[in-house]
Amino acid sequence: MSAGTSLRQIRQQRPLIHQITNYVVMNETANATLALGALPVMAHAPEEVEEMVSAAGALVLNIGTLSAHWIEAMLMAGLAANKLGVPVVLDPVGAGATRFRSETAKRILGEVDVAVLRGNPGEVASLVGGASEMRGVESMGAWDDPADLARRAAHALSVVVSMTGPLDHVSDGARNSVISNGHPMLATITGTGCIASAMTGSFLAVSGSHFDAAVEALVALGVAGEDAARDAKGPGTFHVNLYDALAALDPDTLDARAKIT
Amino acid sequence: MSAGTSLRQIRQQRPLIHQITNYVVMNETANATLALGALPVMAHAPEEVEEMVSAAGALVLNIGTLSAHWIEAMLMAGLAANKLGVPVVLDPVGAGATRFRSETAKRILGEVDVAVLRGNPGEVASLVGGASEMRGVESMGAWDDPADLARRAAHALSVVVSMTGPLDHVSDGARNSVISNGHPMLATITGTGCIASAMTGSFLAVSGSHFDAAVEALVALGVAGEDAARDAKGPGTFHVNLYDALAALDPDTLDARAKIT
Amino acid sequence: MSAGTSLRQIRQQRPLIHQITNYVVMNETANATLALGALPVMAHAPEEVEEMVSAAGALVLNIGTLSAHWIEAMLMAGLAANKLGVPVVLDPVGAGATRFRSETAKRILGEVDVAVLRGNPGEVASLVGGASEMRGVESMGAWDDPADLARRAAHALSVVVSMTGPLDHVSDGARNSVISNGHPMLATITGTGCIASAMTGSFLAVSGSHFDAAVEALVALGVAGEDAARDAKGPGTFHVNLYDALAALDPDTLDARAKIT
Repeated sequence: MSAGTSLRQIRQQRPLIHQITNYVVMNETANATLALGALPVMAHAPEEVEEMVSAAGALVLNIGTLSAHWIEAMLMAGLAANKLGVPVVLDPVGAGATRFRSETAKRILGEVDVAVLRGNPGEVASLVGGASEMRGVESMGAWDDPADLARRAAHALSVVVSMTGPLDHVSDGARNSVISNGHPMLATITGTGCIASAMTGSFLAVSGSHFDAAVEALVALGVAGEDAARDAKGPGTFHVNLYDALAALDPDTLDARAKIT
Repeated sequence: MSAGTSLRQIRQQRPLIHQITNYVVMNETANATLALGALPVMAHAPEEVEEMVSAAGALVLNIGTLSAHWIEAMLMAGLAANKLGVPVVLDPVGAGATRFRSETAKRILGEVDVAVLRGNPGEVASLVGGASEMRGVESMGAWDDPADLARRAAHALSVVVSMTGPLDHVSDGARNSVISNGHPMLATITGTGCIASAMTGSFLAVSGSHFDAAVEALVALGVAGEDAARDAKGPGTFHVNLYDALAALDPDTLDARAKIT
Repeated sequence: MSAGTSLRQIRQQRPLIHQITNYVVMNETANATLALGALPVMAHAPEEVEEMVSAAGALVLNIGTLSAHWIEAMLMAGLAANKLGVPVVLDPVGAGATRFRSETAKRILGEVDVAVLRGNPGEVASLVGGASEMRGVESMGAWDDPADLARRAAHALSVVVSMTGPLDHVSDGARNSVISNGHPMLATITGTGCIASAMTGSFLAVSGSHFDAAVEALVALGVAGEDAARDAKGPGTFHVNLYDALAALDPDTLDARAKIT
């Protein structure tokens, strides 16, 4: 596993990352994808999702501002991606907050072969029948044993679970990693979770291992978050700095800065 | 009335602010809500709005990029909020500019018990049968007696009217306040009116008085606007600074900086 | 032709620019329109597009996140604009990437009298039957003779073609201009093409010549891009600086800085 090598490949290959995501963060995930070095495209019409995904290196499904016809498009795109071997990321934004979101996330997990589930602890817990503490799309409260939650979810759902929080936990059920890169300011703006999902798609597009890609993406975002926080005066400047930091990520030093256990 | 005390409560309680708003400003109002200290959630599907609003401290309805199925969701959410005692803010973006927007704003006011109507003078005038000078979503021209317009609208519509402009006017028909905090740069970016509405929701969630909450929200935004303008080189840096300034608002000095008459 | 004179007129007249555009860039094109000096409005409901465009100085149609009911609204708005003499800009985002986008762009060009087609080389090529190299919404690869492509497209489609890239090419089939203002950083953020289209609408609203307006808009954006790049540390700060630079554009020096051949 080398986040630096993968980042270099993203910038050389410029994979297309097809994102069916929420209205709140579309601009943010597109710009983060570009800053990292990949090419974003947003397309949600049933008339084109299958064709678009056929050119993509990864598909990112994000249920943050859901409505019925978007779900159909997500399923169509997901099934097409599976047929073509394009890896799929699911970001179950707000699962646990409403039945509609929980059921939609479960339906996608049931019908589509998802490579990586990228969510917060409350969302992940809600998908494996655990007690989920959500307020809106935010995961509330501490989790006794997040590593165990990630592992159990990976096992139950047959996916790589990439669970972000003060510490990030990635598990495929067998291997487990904790990533302690990052900065508390990442939680002060909306959409950093969604950015993590888009970046996970970018790393999946160049990686042979879903697990490695999930870890590398969180390392890259965490390191960029550390850099962005340095001169930030608040969430506004942090947000701006984050794109600068993503674009400035140095493949040569990225692995040395990774904090993975 | 104390904007500082309310701000402290927002940051302690972190109320969920359910926003059904327009595509243009979703990211902006979410980030402003977070910077202030509350938790934003955007959800517009009929399948989930009632459940989502049941967890919310306030509901913000904003008609800035309207389409038919969004109106149904707004009405469902609004009626559910009324049943639960969750206060509702209506931002009638573009009322007076097209019949569709005017009629939709009136329909929401007719069917939902709105706590605060937050708009510009042209929008407010159009809802009480006054001559409305709108170009797109901007209120054009000066108003002879905006205080009277706010008072008449509050009386006619049985809401607190929060009317923003170079001077802000808040009226419940009996009490009337003029807030002179703020900065002309607030008018150089899109979405500051929508941010005012989201912040009004945040203050409503912790306040016992709709009138007080409306005034306090405009004081907080105005003071943040003054701080954001200080080092701004134009609308781009002002926009970024605004989030920093909202997050840096000091509850201890906020009331001393308030300019309310 | 004078970009400076047109810019002065935009700031004096503040034309309303009605934009039916994609979710990714709505905030960005609205803020760029405001920073330039015009007034943006986003409205896509069939119930109001005809009324809204009747107050507009230009209509901008952008197919970046297409779905079926948006196409109907674009056609309704376009036909209403034609009837009223309001100039129409079409931004065929992603034409060539999927059949749905290519066919939609062609349908709009067939049914609506488009003044300016603003796209990248891959999009333009796809609309005149040329080989189109697209990955998602990005035009890939070099074009042997972009000036010839612009000229042929202008002739075939009876529009002014405004084709942006490292060099910008504007052609009405007879006259041809190359604009070499701009900066490579414009390609590092999403939405600068869409901003070019919104600015083209703004210049069309005050100009007697579609060709001149298209050239002037690209000069203005290019010069602002040069200014924005000066202190940028990456795509985040460049993005913020771009709005500052648009607002600071000086009508008195704009023509002297124009690089048109």
